Amino acid sequence: MSNPKTAITPTREENYPEWYQQVIRAADMAENSDVRGCMVIKPWGYALWENIQRTLDGMFKATGHRNAYFPLFIPLSFLEKEAQHVEGFAKECAVVTHHRLEASPDGTGLVPAGKLDEPLVVRPTSETIIGAAFARWVQSYRDLPLLINQWANVVRWELRTRLFLRTTEFLWQEGHTVHATREEAVAETLQMLRVYAEFAEEHMAMPVVTGVKTAGERFPGAVDTYCIEAMMQDRKALQAGTSHFLGQNFAKASEIRFQSEAGELEYAWTTSWGVSTRLVGALIMTHADDDGLVLPPNLAPAHVVIMPVTFKADDPKAVEDYCDQLAADVRKIIYNGRPVEVEIDRRDIRGGDKVWQWIKKGIPIRLEVGPRDMASDSVFMGRRDRPAKEKGAVARTEFLATLADTLADMQRTLLERARAFRAAHTREIDTKDEFYAFFTPENAERPEMHGGFAMTHWSGDAAVEEQIRTDLSVTIRCIPDIPDATPGTCPFSGKPSARRVVWAKAY
Amino acid sequence: MSNPKTAITPTREENYPEWYQQVIRAADMAENSDVRGCMVIKPWGYALWENIQRTLDGMFKATGHRNAYFPLFIPLSFLEKEAQHVEGFAKECAVVTHHRLEASPDGTGLVPAGKLDEPLVVRPTSETIIGAAFARWVQSYRDLPLLINQWANVVRWELRTRLFLRTTEFLWQEGHTVHATREEAVAETLQMLRVYAEFAEEHMAMPVVTGVKTAGERFPGAVDTYCIEAMMQDRKALQAGTSHFLGQNFAKASEIRFQSEAGELEYAWTTSWGVSTRLVGALIMTHADDDGLVLPPNLAPAHVVIMPVTFKADDPKAVEDYCDQLAADVRKIIYNGRPVEVEIDRRDIRGGDKVWQWIKKGIPIRLEVGPRDMASDSVFMGRRDRPAKEKGAVARTEFLATLADTLADMQRTLLERARAFRAAHTREIDTKDEFYAFFTPENAERPEMHGGFAMTHWSGDAAVEEQIRTDLSVTIRCIPDIPDATPGTCPFSGKPSARRVVWAKAY
Repeated sequence: MSNPKTAITPTREENYPEWYQQVIRAADMAENSDVRGCMVIKPWGYALWENIQRTLDGMFKATGHRNAYFPLFIPLSFLEKEAQHVEGFAKECAVVTHHRLEASPDGTGLVPAGKLDEPLVVRPTSETIIGAAFARWVQSYRDLPLLINQWANVVRWELRTRLFLRTTEFLWQEGHTVHATREEAVAETLQMLRVYAEFAEEHMAMPVVTGVKTAGERFPGAVDTYCIEAMMQDRKALQAGTSHFLGQNFAKASEIRFQSEAGELEYAWTTSWGVSTRLVGALIMTHADDDGLVLPPNLAPAHVVIMPVTFKADDPKAVEDYCDQLAADVRKIIYNGRPVEVEIDRRDIRGGDKVWQWIKKGIPIRLEVGPRDMASDSVFMGRRDRPAKEKGAVARTEFLATLADTLADMQRTLLERARAFRAAHTREIDTKDEFYAFFTPENAERPEMHGGFAMTHWSGDAAVEEQIRTDLSVTIRCIPDIPDATPGTCPFSGKPSARRVVWAKAY
Repeated sequence: MSNPKTAITPTREENYPEWYQQVIRAADMAENSDVRGCMVIKPWGYALWENIQRTLDGMFKATGHRNAYFPLFIPLSFLEKEAQHVEGFAKECAVVTHHRLEASPDGTGLVPAGKLDEPLVVRPTSETIIGAAFARWVQSYRDLPLLINQWANVVRWELRTRLFLRTTEFLWQEGHTVHATREEAVAETLQMLRVYAEFAEEHMAMPVVTGVKTAGERFPGAVDTYCIEAMMQDRKALQAGTSHFLGQNFAKASEIRFQSEAGELEYAWTTSWGVSTRLVGALIMTHADDDGLVLPPNLAPAHVVIMPVTFKADDPKAVEDYCDQLAADVRKIIYNGRPVEVEIDRRDIRGGDKVWQWIKKGIPIRLEVGPRDMASDSVFMGRRDRPAKEKGAVARTEFLATLADTLADMQRTLLERARAFRAAHTREIDTKDEFYAFFTPENAERPEMHGGFAMTHWSGDAAVEEQIRTDLSVTIRCIPDIPDATPGTCPFSGKPSARRVVWAKAY
């Protein structure tokens, strides 16, 4: 190891992109598969996704949405119905052209056969195929609003992929809603943006900026795209969720019309919104450190690991029994509305290795329990939000009595740390020189390290956006929805500006 | 309507296959999509599937399995690794051959472009792609057993499709496990068969026969396929779940090897097992009647619907408030480990239509609540397991005090009815003539109606199986695992037989 003081090599400072891959490997969350750009999500990573799913699903249902399921395949002609939409996705579609395999003419293997009359695209997103169903379901204003969500896999043929952040196949949810009026559809779009922001902050402990995208960053076919943007530890922005006001564009493409109360046949107003397994990558890059993953308790697959230390015990069975009882007591404690999840790790491996494996997996609380702990009716506890060496004995009863509070404290601590990090790397900038310096790495060997988020006035001029993208690979992440925005002057064009926007390098 | 006395036209007696489609339509569970053979699962159908998922997922986790996720696409060369396996699936594969779309030469639309070097098959099942991951994960006996489950969509290009029963894309779970010994793998296969049987009987209220398939009905590549088979109301069998002992076939195909305790490099033993959205079809055909869907309370998306009757009320708001309080009280009751789910239907439509919509949706308990009910502090209740007209007033307090028991009673009643139906249509048969008569419809206009399940001795002779399939479209559903099987003589071949097997027409 180049740096024996950390469990992950390299460290964030040394090589951030490689650190990210190594954190995932060390936590055993996912790996690349034999299929180009597709990942295998391993149990520890998948359990985290299941917790994300369960929490979000509850929030969607609480806001009146119901789940449904639509076909994986989209006829090519459907995709073509919305011009900007197909333009946006045509370059990265997996296309099914045949429906069986048969022996190749030379007899050495199988080749595609049974050519389809119309190619089918594996859904990159489902506006068009769901729109076709909605056109059947919506007849009258009485059928509205129609509030549907789908949990599904989607495929976008990406050239450069990274585990969780950008993969050819990924898992996500896509909400699709239909409304009688523009106002209701806009309100839905903003409601779901707030749901995403609340989920990110309260459950992922990840602060986000919310706002609207500029025209150049909109979802293909949308009127407005709203987003949540988070700062990663390399100070880059990560778009963690989007909510689209689609106007009547997709309603017209799919012929979603309804009889209004006044008896008129009108085109409906639609929205769509989604988050994906990318959130797992966002969570890693928000909280993990040079010892590996750090899990916010609200989403951790397990909260507590108990490691019985029996090798020196006169009566190993007694220690095991003590640990079993402890686990049973822990499971009676409710945290975040659910019983605390506990693992007992009885594997016959070196104690130090075992402890470090759990540190790397990011479990919030580690308990080592040996004969001496049992004798004093205590546990030897380590918290993942504190240095690995900072651990010590706690009376068992006290540990149990304070466990839920301890987890809540860790959840809060992670959010506060992330907020402090973002604040330290966000700057209001009013001159072009300062802006360019902010985004120029101090050290050429670490090109990823730069200033962070720049809050700068912008007049709405797309040419400025384009110039800065070309010069610095920096983009406007969003026009934030700050209520008390003050006007000013764009430092690049000198034109008047209504408010500051957020500029950053981005994933 | 041809028969105004039932909510569903035609009735089961009149036209069973059409009745099935109409039940699904009337309950608003699913519909055909614009993509050949693919269905749209609507919210009421999907919520039922979510309950099936949640219950099974708990059972899988309780038996030590963990969820993970593997790629949707399988490289053609992977599928080819196991000869019987590819032979079994080659005729029904969706094949991805291109990774983008581009303008057609004549400029009229888009055509597939970016041809892949190796075609990708959309997974029809995942033994080969998961096997490749397992080969990386399994090194030593310490890594075993490896107990993994995946919830996913799969695609099999079916020629004739029917909602839920046979669709090109369907949702399922596939368990995949790796073991150090044959004995452990066989024990796992049988354990998951028991889990499926328990789920079917306790939660779906659907009695099943468990047993092993004959060689001709095995999963392609398996050593043994075990199954649960249920009798539908047209007396046909439906295979509702399978559990496969794969021996070392897939371990050899995928090179899943491990260092044994003795230090030898050995091929592992694997299993796979799955159930799918087909279970929804099985549930419908087990319990639905001529008035529509009937839901077993353990899996019902909602247990109780409250319909406020306000059109004659002096004070409609008081009735609404009474209903809201009632709903809040109902939600405090625990049934089957979860709060009772209640819907309040405030839609402004005719009361009779509303009641019949909920009957057709199969909700276990309907409550109509108007000013008179409120005045007497009671509810007007109907149970879906009893005739629609058999409804009446119950004191509110009594209703609440007995609700959990009422639901449990309905769950039990549905299972008993299904058991009685199966018993009435299962016969031990010892002569060829009786067997052929049993499977010959009495009425040529209703070819689907026949005897049911025939329990007949069979020597293991594949020629007999083939002859009966040709003559009657009847197959051996399974060789049941009855502990006290008595030997006898095959009525077709005259050869000695160890036990009776189950013959039936099948979905």
